[in-house]
Amino acid sequence: MAECNVALYGCGTVGAGVAAILIGRSGALADRIGGRVRLKYVVDARKDEVAAELRPPDSVQVTDDLDGPMRDPEVSVVVELIGGTGIARTVVENALRAGKDVVTANKALLAECGGELFRLARANGRSIAFEAAVAGGIPIIAALRNAMVGERLESIYGIVNGTCNYVLTRMSRDKLSYHEALSEAQEKGYAEADPTLDVEGHDAAHKLAVLARLAFGVDVCAADIPCEGISAIEPADLVYAHGLGYTAKLLATGIRRGDAVELRVHPTLLHHEHPLASVGGAYNAVCVHGDCVGEVVLTGLGAGRWATASAVVADVCRVALGTYGAGFAALRQFGDVAWANIVPLAEVRMGYYFRLSCLDMPGVLARVAGILGRHAISISSVIQQDISGGGASGVTAFGQEGPLAAGASAEDRVPVVFMLHEAQEGALQGALRDINQLDCIDGDRTRMFRVQDI
Amino acid sequence: MAECNVALYGCGTVGAGVAAILIGRSGALADRIGGRVRLKYVVDARKDEVAAELRPPDSVQVTDDLDGPMRDPEVSVVVELIGGTGIARTVVENALRAGKDVVTANKALLAECGGELFRLARANGRSIAFEAAVAGGIPIIAALRNAMVGERLESIYGIVNGTCNYVLTRMSRDKLSYHEALSEAQEKGYAEADPTLDVEGHDAAHKLAVLARLAFGVDVCAADIPCEGISAIEPADLVYAHGLGYTAKLLATGIRRGDAVELRVHPTLLHHEHPLASVGGAYNAVCVHGDCVGEVVLTGLGAGRWATASAVVADVCRVALGTYGAGFAALRQFGDVAWANIVPLAEVRMGYYFRLSCLDMPGVLARVAGILGRHAISISSVIQQDISGGGASGVTAFGQEGPLAAGASAEDRVPVVFMLHEAQEGALQGALRDINQLDCIDGDRTRMFRVQDI
Repeated sequence: MAECNVALYGCGTVGAGVAAILIGRSGALADRIGGRVRLKYVVDARKDEVAAELRPPDSVQVTDDLDGPMRDPEVSVVVELIGGTGIARTVVENALRAGKDVVTANKALLAECGGELFRLARANGRSIAFEAAVAGGIPIIAALRNAMVGERLESIYGIVNGTCNYVLTRMSRDKLSYHEALSEAQEKGYAEADPTLDVEGHDAAHKLAVLARLAFGVDVCAADIPCEGISAIEPADLVYAHGLGYTAKLLATGIRRGDAVELRVHPTLLHHEHPLASVGGAYNAVCVHGDCVGEVVLTGLGAGRWATASAVVADVCRVALGTYGAGFAALRQFGDVAWANIVPLAEVRMGYYFRLSCLDMPGVLARVAGILGRHAISISSVIQQDISGGGASGVTAFGQEGPLAAGASAEDRVPVVFMLHEAQEGALQGALRDINQLDCIDGDRTRMFRVQDI
Repeated sequence: MAECNVALYGCGTVGAGVAAILIGRSGALADRIGGRVRLKYVVDARKDEVAAELRPPDSVQVTDDLDGPMRDPEVSVVVELIGGTGIARTVVENALRAGKDVVTANKALLAECGGELFRLARANGRSIAFEAAVAGGIPIIAALRNAMVGERLESIYGIVNGTCNYVLTRMSRDKLSYHEALSEAQEKGYAEADPTLDVEGHDAAHKLAVLARLAFGVDVCAADIPCEGISAIEPADLVYAHGLGYTAKLLATGIRRGDAVELRVHPTLLHHEHPLASVGGAYNAVCVHGDCVGEVVLTGLGAGRWATASAVVADVCRVALGTYGAGFAALRQFGDVAWANIVPLAEVRMGYYFRLSCLDMPGVLARVAGILGRHAISISSVIQQDISGGGASGVTAFGQEGPLAAGASAEDRVPVVFMLHEAQEGALQGALRDINQLDCIDGDRTRMFRVQDI
């Protein structure tokens, strides 16, 4: 390969990592890939700060001029690490129109207008590489693009947001509250100052949209993916779930259903034996099922400067070597694919966990069970076990009303946990609406989890 | 891409799977990769049986003529699934000389003469793809070749032999003897009729040689890798190890040590929290540590018709798309690299477990501890807990001789397990030699495991 000149747009956490690798490992990389990858421009609005921080060699120009590098015919690769869908989109479009290949880690941009950008890239004979956009250091994009090319993929399950996984792990293992765990994640730099995109599941939905295109060959608008975050999770539920053999994860789920596809992001209880259940802290993991290969699980750091930068550098090298473009030009995944026919959440069938806050009086269980029965939902187990204080506890198999039927004060609220056999989401939601209206139930305190059995 | 014609040599378990995918998914593959991959020849000495089994369309010629397909200018890819280092080598060399790209799953061939074959391929402007050679359905070769290109890889740990993992899992979880577990593996088709290559670790050493080239950029002769199999493992040790928090795996280990590299294959105790400890049954897994990306773990089926065939098909598509050749031609890993400077096993430092069969008499522990001390090896814990019958059991912290010092019959043999802090293999072997010569020790029954802490 000839020398490959790179313009890097956006020198924040990841960008500075990419710059450090391309500068610091220039010789080692050249030796390894048989040609030089040269960082020629670093483009950032904070150019003086960036220059002071990076202290690049003279061969690297730090600039705030967005257009200059686009006009430089020597530049063949533009790395977009600005983030968001504003300037980043313009930079990507301008780069493609200027005949440059693009490497990006921008899942929001790809989820919002990936189809259009891919079309623009192909029309210009260029490519967009984005290994770093999903699950940072895990080579899941390459696996779906290449390794799985002969498969009919059945499903993909991902823990793809490190912030949420860190918060849930700290809540589960160390009994922190949601707000304590989130504050800690922010202190450690795992969570943004405004964590909304992460904790409400939107970041995971962006990534699922990108994965769905590769796994199922469909175009997806992230906003169409049913999405629920982790901010309403209470530690008590994690403790109950643990006792039942489950761990809570924010799971991005994609399942092929004939010509349609289930796509959803929500907190999910995974059985402890599930390969993703033990993936803790800021780690990400993706579990893919193909009809030939069976189950493949990839685990690694999903975010952070160096893991993400490493994925970006790998993409830059693929493009520089010329090994990426031919696949991008030919593979159907990057072409015009049909919009996904997403199964409405109400029609999805899953297991369920829910916790009620009940008046501790006779007959409550019978009324709840009656409502579930009317919605054709069958109960797997019922647990009444107060973990909030030192109070009485006991596991109640359904049918023995136990403490609920005993003579405690009618004003006491007790938590009762139900595990349901597989049911349809619509039926479950209908039943929960009815249950929450019972006068013996404090409906505002009802909590529900979906359950993914192995 | 234009049409790509394939000649498949060797139609056994995996070969028949590849043929079935290339024939049965011809249309889907063409749609996905934007061009047709056409199976033109199936070459096998058992041509009539193969034809009867495959019942291929007329467009596929089943033949036992090794040379015919080599002379067909339409054939651009030769898939070698014959196995071994005899005919397979000739087929690969002839294919490269005839200007055809090669796809192979043959780890023995690559471990024995990978360097020469890569050189021949490059000299002829062709490539050799071999994703299926290591850990079947796990895209570890692609990960090391592409995704990790910017990394300085520190270490690689692999469970890369499904037969051994199946046997050890059945012995650990279900208390089968080695021979029972191996027979079962043979019945299920996980183990060959002659399982020597698998159970003695040679297959894993072949794979480690292949991985080491990609991970550390060195050439390795598999015969130079210290290698120990699983055939001497007794269930009792798996039970003791479990009680200590460890699981036994046949682990292929590669660790960068300055300019040298530790390469070794042997049964290894992994702490239950180690990411590879929970990988059971016929599954394989590879755990890589890079200085940027941190720890990445890939898990999946390592063998079997469909998982391996899927990896072969992915390679065929990479070659057909033209995305493989440029990397193969340029990447240093595939060029002339230096021979590995393998750290002699005697110089490696690890944790150790060993079990002695001792006469139950006063002073034994003191004598063993004295020998360990003279070899500068420090003891982490000592356990005397007879699991073979219903006999007395007890955990003995070092220093309290407990049951060993008590007055049982001097003829009783009792198992005593030692866990050692990190020590040098040479010192440990010296100490074990001395210990085995003690008159109170039945040296033939001493068992040792190396321990990999997290």
